[in-house]
Amino acid sequence: MIYVTAYSNKDGLQKNLTLEQLSTLDWNWYWVDFESPTDEEVKLLDSYFHFHPLAIEDCLHELQRPKLDYYDDHTFFVLHSVNREELEREEIDIFLGECAIVTFHKEPAPSLDIAERLLKRSKDMSKVDEYFILYQILDKVVDNYFPIVYEIEDHINEIESNTKNLSMERLLDELFDRRSELLTLRQTVHPMRDLLYRVLNTHHLEGVRDRREYFADIHDHLIKVADIIASNREMTQDIRDSYLSLNSHQTNRTMQILTVISVIFMPLTFIVGVYGMNFQHMPELNTQYGYLVVWIIMIGVSIGMFTWFKRKGWFD
Amino acid sequence: MIYVTAYSNKDGLQKNLTLEQLSTLDWNWYWVDFESPTDEEVKLLDSYFHFHPLAIEDCLHELQRPKLDYYDDHTFFVLHSVNREELEREEIDIFLGECAIVTFHKEPAPSLDIAERLLKRSKDMSKVDEYFILYQILDKVVDNYFPIVYEIEDHINEIESNTKNLSMERLLDELFDRRSELLTLRQTVHPMRDLLYRVLNTHHLEGVRDRREYFADIHDHLIKVADIIASNREMTQDIRDSYLSLNSHQTNRTMQILTVISVIFMPLTFIVGVYGMNFQHMPELNTQYGYLVVWIIMIGVSIGMFTWFKRKGWFD
Amino acid sequence: MIYVTAYSNKDGLQKNLTLEQLSTLDWNWYWVDFESPTDEEVKLLDSYFHFHPLAIEDCLHELQRPKLDYYDDHTFFVLHSVNREELEREEIDIFLGECAIVTFHKEPAPSLDIAERLLKRSKDMSKVDEYFILYQILDKVVDNYFPIVYEIEDHINEIESNTKNLSMERLLDELFDRRSELLTLRQTVHPMRDLLYRVLNTHHLEGVRDRREYFADIHDHLIKVADIIASNREMTQDIRDSYLSLNSHQTNRTMQILTVISVIFMPLTFIVGVYGMNFQHMPELNTQYGYLVVWIIMIGVSIGMFTWFKRKGWFD
Amino acid sequence: MIYVTAYSNKDGLQKNLTLEQLSTLDWNWYWVDFESPTDEEVKLLDSYFHFHPLAIEDCLHELQRPKLDYYDDHTFFVLHSVNREELEREEIDIFLGECAIVTFHKEPAPSLDIAERLLKRSKDMSKVDEYFILYQILDKVVDNYFPIVYEIEDHINEIESNTKNLSMERLLDELFDRRSELLTLRQTVHPMRDLLYRVLNTHHLEGVRDRREYFADIHDHLIKVADIIASNREMTQDIRDSYLSLNSHQTNRTMQILTVISVIFMPLTFIVGVYGMNFQHMPELNTQYGYLVVWIIMIGVSIGMFTWFKRKGWFD
Amino acid sequence: MIYVTAYSNKDGLQKNLTLEQLSTLDWNWYWVDFESPTDEEVKLLDSYFHFHPLAIEDCLHELQRPKLDYYDDHTFFVLHSVNREELEREEIDIFLGECAIVTFHKEPAPSLDIAERLLKRSKDMSKVDEYFILYQILDKVVDNYFPIVYEIEDHINEIESNTKNLSMERLLDELFDRRSELLTLRQTVHPMRDLLYRVLNTHHLEGVRDRREYFADIHDHLIKVADIIASNREMTQDIRDSYLSLNSHQTNRTMQILTVISVIFMPLTFIVGVYGMNFQHMPELNTQYGYLVVWIIMIGVSIGMFTWFKRKGWFD
Ligand SMILES: [Mg+2]
Ligand SMILES: [Mg+2]
Ligand SMILES: [Mg+2]
Ligand SMILES: [Mg+2]
Ligand SMILES: [Mg+2]
Ligand SMILES: [Mg+2]
Ligand SMILES: [Mg+2]
Ligand SMILES: [Mg+2]
Ligand SMILES: [Mg+2]
Ligand SMILES: [Mg+2]
Ligand SMILES: [Mg+2]
Ligand SMILES: [Mg+2]
Ligand SMILES: [Mg+2]
Ligand SMILES: [Mg+2]
Ligand SMILES: [Mg+2]
Ligand SMILES: [Mg+2]
Ligand SMILES: [Mg+2]
Ligand SMILES: [Mg+2]
Ligand SMILES: [Mg+2]
Ligand SMILES: [Mg+2]
Ligand SMILES: [Mg+2]
Ligand SMILES: [Mg+2]
Ligand SMILES: [Mg+2]
Ligand SMILES: [Mg+2]
Ligand SMILES: [Mg+2]
Ligand SMILES: [Mg+2]
Ligand SMILES: [Mg+2]
Ligand SMILES: [Mg+2]
Ligand SMILES: [Mg+2]
Ligand SMILES: [Mg+2]
Ligand SMILES: [Mg+2]
Repeated sequence: MIYVTAYSNKDGLQKNLTLEQLSTLDWNWYWVDFESPTDEEVKLLDSYFHFHPLAIEDCLHELQRPKLDYYDDHTFFVLHSVNREELEREEIDIFLGECAIVTFHKEPAPSLDIAERLLKRSKDMSKVDEYFILYQILDKVVDNYFPIVYEIEDHINEIESNTKNLSMERLLDELFDRRSELLTLRQTVHPMRDLLYRVLNTHHLEGVRDRREYFADIHDHLIKVADIIASNREMTQDIRDSYLSLNSHQTNRTMQILTVISVIFMPLTFIVGVYGMNFQHMPELNTQYGYLVVWIIMIGVSIGMFTWFKRKGWFD
Repeated sequence: MIYVTAYSNKDGLQKNLTLEQLSTLDWNWYWVDFESPTDEEVKLLDSYFHFHPLAIEDCLHELQRPKLDYYDDHTFFVLHSVNREELEREEIDIFLGECAIVTFHKEPAPSLDIAERLLKRSKDMSKVDEYFILYQILDKVVDNYFPIVYEIEDHINEIESNTKNLSMERLLDELFDRRSELLTLRQTVHPMRDLLYRVLNTHHLEGVRDRREYFADIHDHLIKVADIIASNREMTQDIRDSYLSLNSHQTNRTMQILTVISVIFMPLTFIVGVYGMNFQHMPELNTQYGYLVVWIIMIGVSIGMFTWFKRKGWFD
Repeated sequence: MIYVTAYSNKDGLQKNLTLEQLSTLDWNWYWVDFESPTDEEVKLLDSYFHFHPLAIEDCLHELQRPKLDYYDDHTFFVLHSVNREELEREEIDIFLGECAIVTFHKEPAPSLDIAERLLKRSKDMSKVDEYFILYQILDKVVDNYFPIVYEIEDHINEIESNTKNLSMERLLDELFDRRSELLTLRQTVHPMRDLLYRVLNTHHLEGVRDRREYFADIHDHLIKVADIIASNREMTQDIRDSYLSLNSHQTNRTMQILTVISVIFMPLTFIVGVYGMNFQHMPELNTQYGYLVVWIIMIGVSIGMFTWFKRKGWFD
Repeated sequence: MIYVTAYSNKDGLQKNLTLEQLSTLDWNWYWVDFESPTDEEVKLLDSYFHFHPLAIEDCLHELQRPKLDYYDDHTFFVLHSVNREELEREEIDIFLGECAIVTFHKEPAPSLDIAERLLKRSKDMSKVDEYFILYQILDKVVDNYFPIVYEIEDHINEIESNTKNLSMERLLDELFDRRSELLTLRQTVHPMRDLLYRVLNTHHLEGVRDRREYFADIHDHLIKVADIIASNREMTQDIRDSYLSLNSHQTNRTMQILTVISVIFMPLTFIVGVYGMNFQHMPELNTQYGYLVVWIIMIGVSIGMFTWFKRKGWFD
Repeated sequence: MIYVTAYSNKDGLQKNLTLEQLSTLDWNWYWVDFESPTDEEVKLLDSYFHFHPLAIEDCLHELQRPKLDYYDDHTFFVLHSVNREELEREEIDIFLGECAIVTFHKEPAPSLDIAERLLKRSKDMSKVDEYFILYQILDKVVDNYFPIVYEIEDHINEIESNTKNLSMERLLDELFDRRSELLTLRQTVHPMRDLLYRVLNTHHLEGVRDRREYFADIHDHLIKVADIIASNREMTQDIRDSYLSLNSHQTNRTMQILTVISVIFMPLTFIVGVYGMNFQHMPELNTQYGYLVVWIIMIGVSIGMFTWFKRKGWFD
């Protein structure tokens, strides 16, 4: 579907126009939104708007990096919004021409819906133009990163305190998945941050200069998201390393217990085995105090072993 | 609450004014401090002071990164002080206008109290202006980082030498918590350092140029804190890695002891088991020297095993 | 073999010329392709084209890094295409002169074949010149990296989910091989990316300036490939670290089971061994309830041990 | 103590002057050295020399980072020398004014003593001025880093080859301490290197420009020390990682031996236990070849197990 | 020994001159090579050539970093060649004056010998000057790094595939030694690369500008060597980490086998021990089917244990 919105000083904001109507109107600016366009509609990018073939190719092809390209009479943006449920990147393409903005997206884009609603509610239309719409879209796309990253952060804190009392296997698996998500998210956030930096420092976009503080605010938010992602990846690394250290320590303790027990009982078991043998000629068996002597020997061996381990510090 | 302080050459320093009084006064400079302001008071940022809506939004919303924004007739700072007890970041917002400084904070801010006390005690009021107050606040906020980071450093040194004789589990957990704290602190210190760098190198803040050495001193302190944090994180990594290596070594030693004992006693226990069987026809049992021969065999096996391990270097 | 293609306004596109024909023609531009050239043909680089000896040396010698050198009357490129089957780098050398492009490669180069086919099919020959051919070759070489890197990414995802149910040894070995491949690929992609950056920002290549967006598109692709490689190397690191943590945990669990079993049965086995001894004078053996008492003791010992481990949390 | 040295063309080099004498003299340049000054003497920094209060504060307070500050009529240096015995940083502060140098240090500073001795021995006093003294001090402070870092390097090489035949615990502990020392040293060397870089590239210090090659030489040395420190930290990391790998391998080997022994003898011990039972009705016990059959079974089981492990490659 | 070579348009290339002859000649350029000079000869650097004392000091003292210093009338280079057998750095110092080059080295330097031979064989002496000789020396020194780094790379590949079938201890030790060598080599290559970068970008060396492509070629080679070193260090890290993971996995498998065996046989051995006791009153011993029941119990226990482990997935 193609949604056409235009504004003229004379007629005010007009929605749901057709492209034909747009051609005949005397507008101040217009916004055309391609939402999940048909093949027919896609062709209009070339035939009606005459956008650069490379930009159109980037629209149609599989997920690009967020990017910013300057063509002769328009600027082309590829933005990545992140789908909150599936953490999947969804592309929003923007062609910014003089007094015109064209957006293109294959999936429904909530950020655009919000921007549209804000546009309708705007009271002072004198401040609204194509750069205002661009700002609104960028702002909404970036705002949407925060709940996602905060959710991951909460998950990590949950893993750290293990409030759900999960098994270690589950915890480690969850940790790995959170790291994976952070990695995926970073692949969106870093190029978006670099894109905003270029938006702020280019001389191609005059409309940005007049609203510099607004676009700088978005850049700030992207830096913050990138910071949180980096911190959380370090945090997960710390949790895993700590777990590894702790586990290594516990294995060592367990080994020591096992060794102490084995070292004490193995000789004893051997001794009692000796006198369980059925040889006819075993002189010790017939002595009066043989049994007593064996007990004394065994207790002596045990105490000796115990003292040895004590001195090695295994019971500290 | 709103605290208004103003200075005029005529009347000197005046405290606890109202905003109405301020409007009528002929002051040299003034300082308005919003401490845990009511919703009513918050509205004054817009209605009385006419600050930029983006700056006001940053004041009201959840924790921003430390930042520095230039608006047409004022500069906006977001500072992060760190609460010493809970290591929590607390935001202090500053609007710096011509001959005017407005501070805004939702929690009590000890740094501001100290700055205020210094102001009262100032003898030479000719040197005091809004930049002097800005310097004092920045200086106190940054000074406050040092005891926190030194405390963490002391904790880490304690962990390294383990003076409290804690169990390994506790030590590892403490180490992890210290790393977490350093990470949190770094998230405050790095953006503050970058902010001071911008304060020093911007052309927007004339008052800084006249006191460059003072603001550079704060920047130096921030670099030092960042250095200490980085070193201490490396130190904790080193402690943990060392512990892991040591543990791995001890596990190996324990394993060797267990193996030596098992390898020596298992065959012996098997041999005595053989002659503990109750078969009617076991010719060895009835021989004169059977028992002696078995002992000789067992001693031989033991010595053999022992020599084998000796040669493998397990007793070195 | 040497393939000569030339274009003149008069005669149009002419293929399979000889170098002699080329000398006599009045062409707009020409393309000479050295494919697995004989030693005789190699000498033409010097004798016919008079290229710089350092550039010719780079052609002939073993694999260089991708590079870009400016000589007085020509520019020299070393590109690396990657052979998809064996992941081996193959060198394509390009001499770009005024209205002339000479390509040189020792193995068959599919990227050049595709570029040639595109050239033949070009309808508007006015837009075709030596820079167009350069762009086509670079584009095809870089496009070819994507299926390779995606294949590796798919492999890694397969390893992570282990759909083929491989043994752990195989998985770890596969992971190592994927990391190796990514390392090898990175050695091609990073210098190629830097080369494209220089192509975009040099003042030596006028023809690039007119098609800046096309060459920038290739640069974008190289940045994307580099990003994917970096992410995937981090991903493999994560998988390995997770596996290590998990394994360490399982070893610990196994150790605990072994220890519990040993600690419970070793004393019991010792006790029954004691009363299996054949001493004539063992008073316990003749008492009425001796056997019962031993059972009670053994059950008591078992329950005690069990409770001890329970309290240590080994059954949680 | 305060040591005053001054030079005038008329009187030559004069030592052990008082500050009063200095006031009345017509000197070319002078050097005042505050060594472990009393509180009285400290006050002279302000009252006699009128240095900037921030610089004086840096003198008196606890260890600063090495730093370089420009004030209106003097430049302030904080240097860190390293005490060779205890690897402790000691601060040397320098105020460099026009034709005047003032040094300040709380502990005895051998570097200054050497610089002083060189001054006395100088034959051509025309080349000596305050920058010459600054150079000598910097040079001696930096020269002093080398024996320290070389000593650590020797220690690490000793640890690697373990010539003293120390226990593994000791080796790991030593390695950790060396890493700690390198970390501490780096905290001195990096800021000193950055300071020298600024000394070389500032326009504030004219006297440096005339002796650029001399100060550049110090900078070179600092880069070299920083290089050695970085390499040695990597080296210790390598040693520890190698040790960890080796240990993990040995634990695995030991485990395999233990497992082989247990797996062979446990079933055998069980079998002989079975025929050690005292049931009245155990038909096997009364057969003619029971004992022989049991031996055959046990030998069969042993060989089976042995073959199984052999095929698993545990004896390779 | 000092070798003097000079060239004049009149007399052509003259070898084995003395310094006295050099003074009287009217040469175009000369090359003086100090090879393992005596103390007498060393003094000529100052007395005959009047080089800067700092440069002479760098010649004489222990191994410097590769460096480049500009003095008033000469440029000073410290190069590091690497001895192929012992991987030891050897210093080659070069003083480049106007129409003069002086080389200084304490050990025989094969790179210089090759450069000399090339000089003799040069046909077109009009292109030969001091910069040509400098280029030849740099080129030969850098060319010599390649076989060394390739040898290390081959070693690492051998370790990875373990074609020599070495024990794990040997492999790990070899890996560690290769990493050490790469570290040492990097300490030579990185400063050499930075030196060449400065050579290319300085305005002090006019002769380089005319042969820029030649010196750029050396710089390219140094970047390539640095790349290979970095890749190979990552590769060794990968090999070691993989080995660690694999070992951890094998230890776990071995532990599981041991645990399964112990858990199955320990209770059985206890049971047969019970009925090996010699109590007079053990009612089970006298029953008709006691022995059979015990066997049934033992088989039941074994199957139960086996099923339990099966369900835990230890036999997958
Ligand atoms: Mg998972
Ligand atoms: Mg995942
Ligand atoms: Mg990406
Ligand atoms: Mg942030
Ligand atoms: Mg955060
Ligand atoms: Mg904790
Ligand atoms: Mg925590
Ligand atoms: Mg955090
Ligand atoms: Mg942050
Ligand atoms: Mg510091
Ligand atoms: Mg420190
Ligand atoms: Mg480490
Ligand atoms: Mg492999
Ligand atoms: Mg491989
Ligand atoms: Mg390689
Ligand atoms: Mg390379
Ligand atoms: Mg990308
Ligand atoms: Mg990826
Ligand atoms: Mg990607
Ligand atoms: Mg220690
Ligand atoms: Mg320390
Ligand atoms: Mg520091
Ligand atoms: Mg060095
Ligand atoms: Mg070194
Ligand atoms: Mg070294
Ligand atoms: Mg070695
Ligand atoms: Mg070594
Ligand atoms: Mg070095
Ligand atoms: Mg390379
Ligand atoms: Mg390579
Ligand atoms: Mg690791």
